[in-house]
Amino acid sequence: MKTISIVGGTGYTGGELLRLLIPHPEVTVQQVTSRGQAKRFLRTVHPNLRGQTNLKFVDPADLKPCDILFLCMPHGKSAADIEKYAGMADQIIDLSADFRLSSPDQYLQWYDWEHPTADWLGKFVYGLAETQRDALRSANYVSGVGCNATATNLALLPLAKAGVIDKAIVEVKVGSSESGNSHTAGSHHPVRSGAMRSFAPTGHRHQAEILQELGDFELHFSATAVEMVRGVLCTGHVFLNKAMTEKEVWSLFRETYKEEPFVRVVKERRGLYRYPEPKILAGTNFAEVGFEYDESSGRVVVMSAIDNLMKGAAGSAVQCMNLMCGFEETLGLEFMGLHPI
Amino acid sequence: MKTISIVGGTGYTGGELLRLLIPHPEVTVQQVTSRGQAKRFLRTVHPNLRGQTNLKFVDPADLKPCDILFLCMPHGKSAADIEKYAGMADQIIDLSADFRLSSPDQYLQWYDWEHPTADWLGKFVYGLAETQRDALRSANYVSGVGCNATATNLALLPLAKAGVIDKAIVEVKVGSSESGNSHTAGSHHPVRSGAMRSFAPTGHRHQAEILQELGDFELHFSATAVEMVRGVLCTGHVFLNKAMTEKEVWSLFRETYKEEPFVRVVKERRGLYRYPEPKILAGTNFAEVGFEYDESSGRVVVMSAIDNLMKGAAGSAVQCMNLMCGFEETLGLEFMGLHPI
Amino acid sequence: MKTISIVGGTGYTGGELLRLLIPHPEVTVQQVTSRGQAKRFLRTVHPNLRGQTNLKFVDPADLKPCDILFLCMPHGKSAADIEKYAGMADQIIDLSADFRLSSPDQYLQWYDWEHPTADWLGKFVYGLAETQRDALRSANYVSGVGCNATATNLALLPLAKAGVIDKAIVEVKVGSSESGNSHTAGSHHPVRSGAMRSFAPTGHRHQAEILQELGDFELHFSATAVEMVRGVLCTGHVFLNKAMTEKEVWSLFRETYKEEPFVRVVKERRGLYRYPEPKILAGTNFAEVGFEYDESSGRVVVMSAIDNLMKGAAGSAVQCMNLMCGFEETLGLEFMGLHPI
Amino acid sequence: MKTISIVGGTGYTGGELLRLLIPHPEVTVQQVTSRGQAKRFLRTVHPNLRGQTNLKFVDPADLKPCDILFLCMPHGKSAADIEKYAGMADQIIDLSADFRLSSPDQYLQWYDWEHPTADWLGKFVYGLAETQRDALRSANYVSGVGCNATATNLALLPLAKAGVIDKAIVEVKVGSSESGNSHTAGSHHPVRSGAMRSFAPTGHRHQAEILQELGDFELHFSATAVEMVRGVLCTGHVFLNKAMTEKEVWSLFRETYKEEPFVRVVKERRGLYRYPEPKILAGTNFAEVGFEYDESSGRVVVMSAIDNLMKGAAGSAVQCMNLMCGFEETLGLEFMGLHPI
Repeated sequence: MKTISIVGGTGYTGGELLRLLIPHPEVTVQQVTSRGQAKRFLRTVHPNLRGQTNLKFVDPADLKPCDILFLCMPHGKSAADIEKYAGMADQIIDLSADFRLSSPDQYLQWYDWEHPTADWLGKFVYGLAETQRDALRSANYVSGVGCNATATNLALLPLAKAGVIDKAIVEVKVGSSESGNSHTAGSHHPVRSGAMRSFAPTGHRHQAEILQELGDFELHFSATAVEMVRGVLCTGHVFLNKAMTEKEVWSLFRETYKEEPFVRVVKERRGLYRYPEPKILAGTNFAEVGFEYDESSGRVVVMSAIDNLMKGAAGSAVQCMNLMCGFEETLGLEFMGLHPI
Repeated sequence: MKTISIVGGTGYTGGELLRLLIPHPEVTVQQVTSRGQAKRFLRTVHPNLRGQTNLKFVDPADLKPCDILFLCMPHGKSAADIEKYAGMADQIIDLSADFRLSSPDQYLQWYDWEHPTADWLGKFVYGLAETQRDALRSANYVSGVGCNATATNLALLPLAKAGVIDKAIVEVKVGSSESGNSHTAGSHHPVRSGAMRSFAPTGHRHQAEILQELGDFELHFSATAVEMVRGVLCTGHVFLNKAMTEKEVWSLFRETYKEEPFVRVVKERRGLYRYPEPKILAGTNFAEVGFEYDESSGRVVVMSAIDNLMKGAAGSAVQCMNLMCGFEETLGLEFMGLHPI
Repeated sequence: MKTISIVGGTGYTGGELLRLLIPHPEVTVQQVTSRGQAKRFLRTVHPNLRGQTNLKFVDPADLKPCDILFLCMPHGKSAADIEKYAGMADQIIDLSADFRLSSPDQYLQWYDWEHPTADWLGKFVYGLAETQRDALRSANYVSGVGCNATATNLALLPLAKAGVIDKAIVEVKVGSSESGNSHTAGSHHPVRSGAMRSFAPTGHRHQAEILQELGDFELHFSATAVEMVRGVLCTGHVFLNKAMTEKEVWSLFRETYKEEPFVRVVKERRGLYRYPEPKILAGTNFAEVGFEYDESSGRVVVMSAIDNLMKGAAGSAVQCMNLMCGFEETLGLEFMGLHPI
Repeated sequence: MKTISIVGGTGYTGGELLRLLIPHPEVTVQQVTSRGQAKRFLRTVHPNLRGQTNLKFVDPADLKPCDILFLCMPHGKSAADIEKYAGMADQIIDLSADFRLSSPDQYLQWYDWEHPTADWLGKFVYGLAETQRDALRSANYVSGVGCNATATNLALLPLAKAGVIDKAIVEVKVGSSESGNSHTAGSHHPVRSGAMRSFAPTGHRHQAEILQELGDFELHFSATAVEMVRGVLCTGHVFLNKAMTEKEVWSLFRETYKEEPFVRVVKERRGLYRYPEPKILAGTNFAEVGFEYDESSGRVVVMSAIDNLMKGAAGSAVQCMNLMCGFEETLGLEFMGLHPI
């Protein structure tokens, strides 16, 4: 059994990690830190852990060495202290954005931020198994993924890998848990409830991760908040750089994902769920990907759905841990989701 | 045209007053105060006022005399400064709880609060037209109503007036706008969304207003938060102190409400809305009241629905203003509500 | 007072027409037909009409002549019987799609339908005041508008009129009332609730109305269902055919809408509602339009919000009626919407 | 490995059984019948089963013998054919109401139904482990539970067992999945969405199951539909037949549930989830039970929360199967629920 600890365990991704790791057969949760909740039971913050553990939060100062360290802190914190954490665990998975991008220039451009420990950027592998599986198997340092980036990456991957994307206009629709567990005027229920609210029509930072993973094409990105707690639906309007038949498009999707344990191509002729839809993925690590092709205009509408806290954060992180440690890739990630919900 | 001003106009009841009073044919909105938003357009806070007015918030220190003053402040503030406000307007409608109860003892009991201007309590009329219409016609000082109290008062009034209630167990289901426009950990969308949350199983303060208006019987009260922004549904389980037929119960409801412009008795055999339901009342000043009678057990289940910001706050306040000023009682309150919604 | 009647008054657009026309100061509602609900009170179907009218539905066979006839029937019905209806009223407003397009070829292409009374197409004016105001003032026959088409038309109009659109990729997010009041497996609450569901990634018929009103450019259109009852949010990604500054784009929007009574340009730096958002427009005839411009990529993200049953259907129809009859254009359409909601 | 089959597997309880039983380590799903969906993949109806099974629905005529048969049919069907099913499997769990009550008189009284195979009633054990665990261990025929009855039974059990209930007024708030997967005018999303709708103020049939399990006291029961898909919140107002301290009440709850694997007593002083709340139980077999005691009035407000499709149906059924077969009671029911949701 490997020991794992979580630094910053009161947030939503911390809570999801605990839900996945407490019953995980190959690891033991050793410590969970919180400055504000130290000495309180985990269940005080994460009510779904009632009866599952008697662990209490510990003060960050009391963190002890362990095998694997999960960092779930606000952006900037992991980068500042990465040397310290590397001294406490051989393997680190950082769920913030601090080590997602491979060059300090990109942080300047997208985050307007001078990375304080840029020499570490090259040591981290981007934590998306579908593009980095082999690298992850031998990685000691893994960065988490952006939720909107992940939905987009999985939607576009089959076409991007084939090099057939000329231009992609991507719109993600997202739930309220994306913004984390801090309340704001905008997250106040009477305000956020029933919203269809454009919050990043241009300039969203996750574009950097998309371009990094998928290579070079013209990308336009917008994000809209809708009424939902968990879930991202990505709709990408892709214009191809060559003529293709629907069958050829199909075959790119099938080839890309046929062996993937967590990606399902969904394009049904029957039933009520014919395209990807996030709500039935709540709590799962699955991504659903589908498309519709308008041959006359050369537009492929690709769609993907994930749970932002799972495949878009904690689920992918555990999938990475499984790969890093040589465990079965799907271990602890078997939950198949609820219907109806 | 009478001039009106609103003290504390950034909250939800202030916003509703503005929606009702800006187009009201007998009044002119003169000033709206706000400490934090002074010099900003009202529409910055109340986006539904875009294009309806060019008024800006003014600093409370700049409040000028007017004909009617609406006070929309946190509880305790109106009581502290009532002398000052009475010097600025002949007529005052206070939407806080500060002048709802007629005796200082009740404030001690229910609010654990020593009322600072208790001599003013007797000058205020409780602002529920259905129980205080005549007093309101000649009142200069009117207190607003509690939203849950109003739903309950209107549900129980026909039976209470007849003196046939032995015991009433009342449960209100409420939306998130009841708590006002200040965000809290509990109003954070991921937390509040989809809630069915008991928040006051016992001890709710609105019981004081119910007993004051309806007289003496055994009252038990609980409140539960549900997924909704606006609306209160009150379900009251009433045990009678004498045998009655369903027809007699019907006749009490009909007699009580047949002349009321804003109360509808709803008990249908057809259609999808057979009992009172708050969602179709959103934005209106209407209350719907209905009941089901189980003769075998002597239990009358009374139901009522209102919009907590309207009949439970701003709508009732405007109805009171109309009565105080001798306007048509329904003026400015004609909106009939949306369906579907 | 003009007399109006509604053919097919049990649906959602029929209900909204009644909400608007019953209190309208220049018309009297004479008859409302329904095959299935004949002889029942309107309020059985439209609970918000309780206390507002004692009218009952009448059988279509009992329809009598009137001044203005509103047709609210399933597509195909008005076209089939237009001669009959024209014999009963001098002015007709048809809310179906039967007379929206000006040529029978377009019906073949988009609806796969041979129009049975194609000679009538030229007599109808498309009912969007913002593009057809002058023609509407002298029209006797007006067609309603498609809701998604209207959101898109208003979002794109400033740029389309200026002839600067090269290509537009439009995505509308829509509520469940768009599909009308007939229940289906897909509208079952456990299925439709919480949906983010692509339902027309390609091939949506409203494209025909958009191209007809806005002229010729490359249009790509997708529609996604989200959790909401009323409302459309349109996000259009527009690529310009010439270099422009943000100021020039601003000026196109301002010029187009500065005199429009029902269109507001929303692009705020403060507050919680900085871009168009449909929920605060529920029940109103207002459209909100805004944009964000990424000069570096030449993409203008235009956004618009409407209530699909109002500006996207019944509200626009009443606005047309006001124009046709020479009434004040905003008459009966003053409701300013609710906040919070 | 025991073989199980499900008769009537397209509904929501059938879907939940499949979610639980496909990965269950001690059983193999052999057949799932459906008249309408025969020969189609299970995933056509239950999209969360994508990738989990390649089973197809079979025609009921093709049902083969198995070890355990789950019956998920509309009420009346199991009773009619119980002899046939008993010939096909040694153990039967029937999720309908057909064998919940122990006497044919009760079916006459509550269901207005003459039970066709009343001699079988005595062979069935009521499937609530918390009241019938020992009987279930040796049972071959088990009836499922009513969801509202289960929420109520678990809320009242500690007080009922102690014989201290004089009178209980119970109100359940329920989600839309309670009504099953058939769409109706009332389940149409624009109608059902945002509802707070009393649907059974009096006369709910589940009262029979409550009184049968808990013994004799005065019970009053009402049910209200609220905006939610899964979940029941029960609020019971209990008047005691003797004076008790809060400590004594506490001790009844603790004693009753301290060994129960699926019931948690929730009564917190900290955190956002201080009382039972159904949303965090979605997909789990857990019930949360709590209370607040108003000593002055002698009222105990008991609260309980469950997922109606799980602890209120399929989850309890699997718990019963585990007991009947001598498996670990919690097997296949480990899912701990999601937060936030």
